[in-house]
Amino acid sequence: MQIIQFPPREQWTRLLQRPVLDNSDLESKVSDILKGVKQRGDQAVREFTERFDRFCPDTLEVSKAEIEEAINLVSPELQQAIQQAKENIEKFHRIQIRNEDVVETMPGVYCWRKSVAIEKVGLYIPGGSAPLFSTILMLAVPARLAGCREIILCTPAYYSDISSGANRGKVHPAVLYTAWLSGITRIFKIGGAQAIAAMAYGTASVPSVDKIFGPGNQYVTCAKMLIQKQGIAIDMPAGPSEVAVFADETANSAFVAADLLSQAEHGSDSQVVLTTTSPELIEDVKAELEKQLHLLSRRTLAGNSLKNSKMFLVKDRAEAMDLLNSYAPEHLILACKDAEELAEKVINAGSVFIGHLSPESAGDYASGTNHTLPTNGFARSYSGVSVDSFVKKITFQQLTQEGLQNISTTVERMAQAEGLDAHARAVKLRREAINKK
Amino acid sequence: MQIIQFPPREQWTRLLQRPVLDNSDLESKVSDILKGVKQRGDQAVREFTERFDRFCPDTLEVSKAEIEEAINLVSPELQQAIQQAKENIEKFHRIQIRNEDVVETMPGVYCWRKSVAIEKVGLYIPGGSAPLFSTILMLAVPARLAGCREIILCTPAYYSDISSGANRGKVHPAVLYTAWLSGITRIFKIGGAQAIAAMAYGTASVPSVDKIFGPGNQYVTCAKMLIQKQGIAIDMPAGPSEVAVFADETANSAFVAADLLSQAEHGSDSQVVLTTTSPELIEDVKAELEKQLHLLSRRTLAGNSLKNSKMFLVKDRAEAMDLLNSYAPEHLILACKDAEELAEKVINAGSVFIGHLSPESAGDYASGTNHTLPTNGFARSYSGVSVDSFVKKITFQQLTQEGLQNISTTVERMAQAEGLDAHARAVKLRREAINKK
Repeated sequence: MQIIQFPPREQWTRLLQRPVLDNSDLESKVSDILKGVKQRGDQAVREFTERFDRFCPDTLEVSKAEIEEAINLVSPELQQAIQQAKENIEKFHRIQIRNEDVVETMPGVYCWRKSVAIEKVGLYIPGGSAPLFSTILMLAVPARLAGCREIILCTPAYYSDISSGANRGKVHPAVLYTAWLSGITRIFKIGGAQAIAAMAYGTASVPSVDKIFGPGNQYVTCAKMLIQKQGIAIDMPAGPSEVAVFADETANSAFVAADLLSQAEHGSDSQVVLTTTSPELIEDVKAELEKQLHLLSRRTLAGNSLKNSKMFLVKDRAEAMDLLNSYAPEHLILACKDAEELAEKVINAGSVFIGHLSPESAGDYASGTNHTLPTNGFARSYSGVSVDSFVKKITFQQLTQEGLQNISTTVERMAQAEGLDAHARAVKLRREAINKK
Repeated sequence: MQIIQFPPREQWTRLLQRPVLDNSDLESKVSDILKGVKQRGDQAVREFTERFDRFCPDTLEVSKAEIEEAINLVSPELQQAIQQAKENIEKFHRIQIRNEDVVETMPGVYCWRKSVAIEKVGLYIPGGSAPLFSTILMLAVPARLAGCREIILCTPAYYSDISSGANRGKVHPAVLYTAWLSGITRIFKIGGAQAIAAMAYGTASVPSVDKIFGPGNQYVTCAKMLIQKQGIAIDMPAGPSEVAVFADETANSAFVAADLLSQAEHGSDSQVVLTTTSPELIEDVKAELEKQLHLLSRRTLAGNSLKNSKMFLVKDRAEAMDLLNSYAPEHLILACKDAEELAEKVINAGSVFIGHLSPESAGDYASGTNHTLPTNGFARSYSGVSVDSFVKKITFQQLTQEGLQNISTTVERMAQAEGLDAHARAVKLRREAINKK
């Protein structure tokens, strides 16, 4: 990790800059995939799956028999862990459901909001070596709590090295088990941009949905951005995962190193930032990183990620928090004394982990908070996924005769000043009809 | 208006289709504007303003003197109306601010969410003949309630026919008055895609913002979609404004016609839909439209809009509601008996107006609900603007020793099953340290 001592403020933006990906080439490739699926449906989905995954299952939809088989393959210990995590995630997300009061803004003018579930949502879960069944919980639990009528899942039908051919045409059992446990309506063995296209436009096999959620590689991310431009909602823009840690002299360097490595092991492009007021801690964390890195099965990925990562030595915790708010990290760990107090000063972050005993991995899996969070500085303006992400808040209003009379002058004057006669007339006609009675 | 009697369900999608705009040509033009402003800042803003508005003011920022002058030009009656509307909008939006409880998901595992204002937001208000000062209230009031630190406004410096040269370099007084009243921090005389670019990237004059709100022409809309793809948040995708009315035999045809015309007068591309169970009402509304259309100053626009609009005769109110949910209108007026009951069945709509005395124009200006709403069917997945649009909901968590011990098995098992060793170690190291004590 690069060590930067007492960086002047005017250099923060440059020092905290994330790598910028040039997607212009990718965009035309992904556009072609989207067009193909839009025009030719399942046939195009099959062709792209053959081309990219080198194998396409006969039936795209996962059968009940496959799910039953998968359930038997997941150990009771893992099932129990997944159930516990689900319970905690449900507890945390349930209180996000809220019915607001009716507001009488003027006598006789009643206004309110109501949360109504998005009818059809689509979740995407990547395949590959790390089966992200935890992400299914993070998306399906709030979708169910919101009351979505249809929750479909697309995930590629392989879960180890594609080239080996092992498990070809199969979805990881823990993914199927978790999908079943979380009440996913239908599961399809489709990956990549073609999965996003199928859910956006619908095909003979895959129903179209109103909003698409979930992580993915650059093809998936690009497909989501393109379909968003076409008016289909997505959870949020995506970028590589990130953690920033503030640690003072009270921090345990082994814990800090483990937290940094939990982020680094996600992939070579993961972003890891340590900010500290203690020069000694930097040395200790460096030594611990060295020691722990070699124990990891994903040490090559984690090592690459650390090479691009930075440690900042700053003069005090106020400056540290300014720097961290300026970075707007996805995950922020406050490993310091009086961490609760410092947490009050957080302005830009996806999720905050307070104190020495709150590692990011607790929230990644099981504490109850959502792990689908804004990366790439999007924490300045985006929230993580919650029940809110699966509902629309529709406003309602009802005026009585008194309400219409009370509001009419205001509406008529404003409409006339904006030059919108019919707007004024819609109120005036009603006012006159009431007065005539 | 085209009349369609008893349309079969399989034709609904086709009949309810909105016109699709081909923006491919526009996109390259707008991309060039964005690039220009990103690279050359104010200089490019001035060049584009000269080119499109045919005049660029010497100073881009509106001065205090200009605001004071504007305040004096707005009649006390209009000031009073704007103040009343602001008060109602504040009342309705204030209850959207909410602090959630801390949830103890397992003994010793504490999780909560906190709403934190987006620091810097940018509002865009179009110029032209209808000065949309009401939209300033709809955006600035929730921004202030949310606690945004910086709220800037861009609006072009003309407010009548550009070619006449009248009011050249000036912003409409009611716009400046409303901006001042709503606590906008800074106002800039910039319009079009160059305004969106200036707020997205920042220039020497204009600060960059984290999220951009507001309506605009196709250039503005396209610029917002493009900067969203670059990770700057926007309020929502935009399309032409819409109203759908359900009216039964109890409806007043003059009221219904006035409501349809209030939408139609927005522009030639406004979408107007009437759904009814009463053949007589169709005839009466047609006659009323004819009568009222000629009274409007914007009758040409309204007339064009009506030509593309549709009346549907359906067999009963249940079918009407299915059709309307399938259309997902921005505004939905329920002009029928037992309208409250029917309102319960709404799944897809931006804002709902219940009963014969609740015209859309009440909500457009002053009832208190927000008028920045999802168009183009986006009501299936998007909400209108609210205080939520101006905050991020950051999650926090804090674990005690007991909490860490309670959650550790679950986290370690799930992390191992996902192949993420360091995630497991971050919990294991802490668990072991506690046990050693």
